[in-house]
Amino acid sequence: MQETRLIQARGKPLGAGALPVIITPLVGKTRAEVLEEVTDIVPKKPDLLEWRIDFFQAIGDISDVIDTALAIRRAAGGVPVLLTRRNVTEGGQPLNIGEPAVAAMYKAACEARCVELIDYELSNTPEDIKALRAVSKANAIGMIMSYHNFQMTPDAATLDSKFAAASGLGADVGKVAVMPIHERDVLELLAATSRAREAVAIPLIGLSMGGLGSLSRVMGWIYGSAATFAVGKNGSAPGQIAIEDLRAALAIARQAVGANKRRSRQKPTR
Amino acid sequence: MQETRLIQARGKPLGAGALPVIITPLVGKTRAEVLEEVTDIVPKKPDLLEWRIDFFQAIGDISDVIDTALAIRRAAGGVPVLLTRRNVTEGGQPLNIGEPAVAAMYKAACEARCVELIDYELSNTPEDIKALRAVSKANAIGMIMSYHNFQMTPDAATLDSKFAAASGLGADVGKVAVMPIHERDVLELLAATSRAREAVAIPLIGLSMGGLGSLSRVMGWIYGSAATFAVGKNGSAPGQIAIEDLRAALAIARQAVGANKRRSRQKPTR
Repeated sequence: MQETRLIQARGKPLGAGALPVIITPLVGKTRAEVLEEVTDIVPKKPDLLEWRIDFFQAIGDISDVIDTALAIRRAAGGVPVLLTRRNVTEGGQPLNIGEPAVAAMYKAACEARCVELIDYELSNTPEDIKALRAVSKANAIGMIMSYHNFQMTPDAATLDSKFAAASGLGADVGKVAVMPIHERDVLELLAATSRAREAVAIPLIGLSMGGLGSLSRVMGWIYGSAATFAVGKNGSAPGQIAIEDLRAALAIARQAVGANKRRSRQKPTR
Repeated sequence: MQETRLIQARGKPLGAGALPVIITPLVGKTRAEVLEEVTDIVPKKPDLLEWRIDFFQAIGDISDVIDTALAIRRAAGGVPVLLTRRNVTEGGQPLNIGEPAVAAMYKAACEARCVELIDYELSNTPEDIKALRAVSKANAIGMIMSYHNFQMTPDAATLDSKFAAASGLGADVGKVAVMPIHERDVLELLAATSRAREAVAIPLIGLSMGGLGSLSRVMGWIYGSAATFAVGKNGSAPGQIAIEDLRAALAIARQAVGANKRRSRQKPTR
């Protein structure tokens, strides 16, 4: 098996090399709300904060965005920040600004170096992706290229092509998050992540969403997903796995997998 | 999705309908060792005790077997018992008796009605399987027909054929337990269990073994496996999941799947 590649920020693996790292979203509408989330979440020791800026009302005010990002950094106690504008077709919030303004916001954030990572969808135009890749690289900001499908899980070839596209476009991380319709769709996503770990040379995030998919958040790291998402603030996303529960489940999973590996030369009883 | 069919004992679902039910093995060499295991395990509330009689030195002494089974029953406080002789090629212990004596032991145990369920491998001769099926049915003893592969995970068609064979031979439960070589083998086993749930009308147990497979013990029920195995007595099988840890992991998994189902009409944030 191929080793799972780790996501880097500031030249070091996130979470001191933890596998998977735990990412918690910030979905406040205002700077005060976002900073309150940070204050509540940081004691729970996530490895990365994802600022979902499509929830942020002032997304169109570049200086407000940068000042808020810097305020998040001050409040985050060293936890790196991922800046994500999720578009509406891939599950994000409707915006009061157009795509050129979004691209300008991302560019300004990279140049201000106010975050460690950015996430940009593979569904953006190749020109926009290449331009943002150039700016992010010039400023040493890591770039996740992502694909989300909230309707269904595409076939294996499509899933493979998304990871390959992220790698081909020079992403630092490739992310695929899809919705299962059938229970076996979750297995398809995990298998695609595993194949991608063998096929491409960048760190990956593979996620199956919703109720059926929730266990991919606990076992995806075995199949090559370097990160998983958890709810940091109680009640902010009812039904998803809370960071405390996810940690407990991960500890059990790691123990089972690791302990069984160590005793692989013993004869199991079943 | 097809509902997962529940394993029955004494005409009622095991574990009052719990999904999955938890089975813990008894691997003592003597009656005293086995009864000590029962005493230690019963407070942990397994749903079924599997007496692995291939570990039992007196397996060839039918009256000792029946008396021991009845002693287990008295000590088990209502927890039903599954009697399993696992053959050597499928991971069991070498025996000091031959196959005819094994068949006679199973027949006597059925006629004495000293256990609730028996497990018999699909690799036995069709004649032996049919004969034991007739005796077990006549005595209202449930019969699991099983396939184990400790070397590897066979291809999808072979996995499918094992579940189909159990159903075709009139089993009450079909069990397939296989060893993963590659991480994706675990997904293949889960997918095969899921297909069998749609294709055959009996309860199923699907398990992927070893370190990689250990998570199938926690999530197999989502794919149609009605039961999972856990270590009841501390230290009896180092590295496998202890019953307490398995319960904790299952609780988190059930909460995640259930809670997300309930909020499926809400828009998830990723």
